[in-house]
Amino acid sequence: MPKLTEEDRQNLLPALYEAGWKPADGRDALNKTYKFSGFVEAFGFMTRAAIYAEKWNHHPEWSNVYNRVDVTLTSHDVGGLSERDVKLAQKLDALAG
Amino acid sequence: MPKLTEEDRQNLLPALYEAGWKPADGRDALNKTYKFSGFVEAFGFMTRAAIYAEKWNHHPEWSNVYNRVDVTLTSHDVGGLSERDVKLAQKLDALAG
Repeated sequence: MPKLTEEDRQNLLPALYEAGWKPADGRDALNKTYKFSGFVEAFGFMTRAAIYAEKWNHHPEWSNVYNRVDVTLTSHDVGGLSERDVKLAQKLDALAG
Repeated sequence: MPKLTEEDRQNLLPALYEAGWKPADGRDALNKTYKFSGFVEAFGFMTRAAIYAEKWNHHPEWSNVYNRVDVTLTSHDVGGLSERDVKLAQKLDALAG
């Protein structure tokens, strides 16, 4: 799966930006911080997300401090964003909902 | 539970340093990076650790990229290391083993 083209980006990224995703600093990657009501809710989200990440063989870079989960998505094999990142971002938003 | 005294540190920290823990940069905290054979093993470790973190009401700051888990332990309520960090560090090492 190739890197997103300029046209792909114009089609796919605005909806993610509206959902709170941002370009990661200095990288062709997407970043979002989720806040939950506590640790169990935050880690529960991570657990659901982990199952999809493994199923789709596309894994986030992520960190957790208590009720916060910070996620960065990029496709290391193509050196930037691909459709896999868009798909995983959408799934994470659905799982966090 | 108070911050570790100098005497506590001399008694408790050397064994953790031997196990691969290090003082975190510029903070009264402990840091360690675990490497696993893959994502499932890394996230499995996090899941086991999460259950103890919640049970003991003492949560790590941690990040995961594929097979790596980077953990920082400190006791935010006392502004530095306490015996809870030592106990959790020991448990994480046992769970990672």
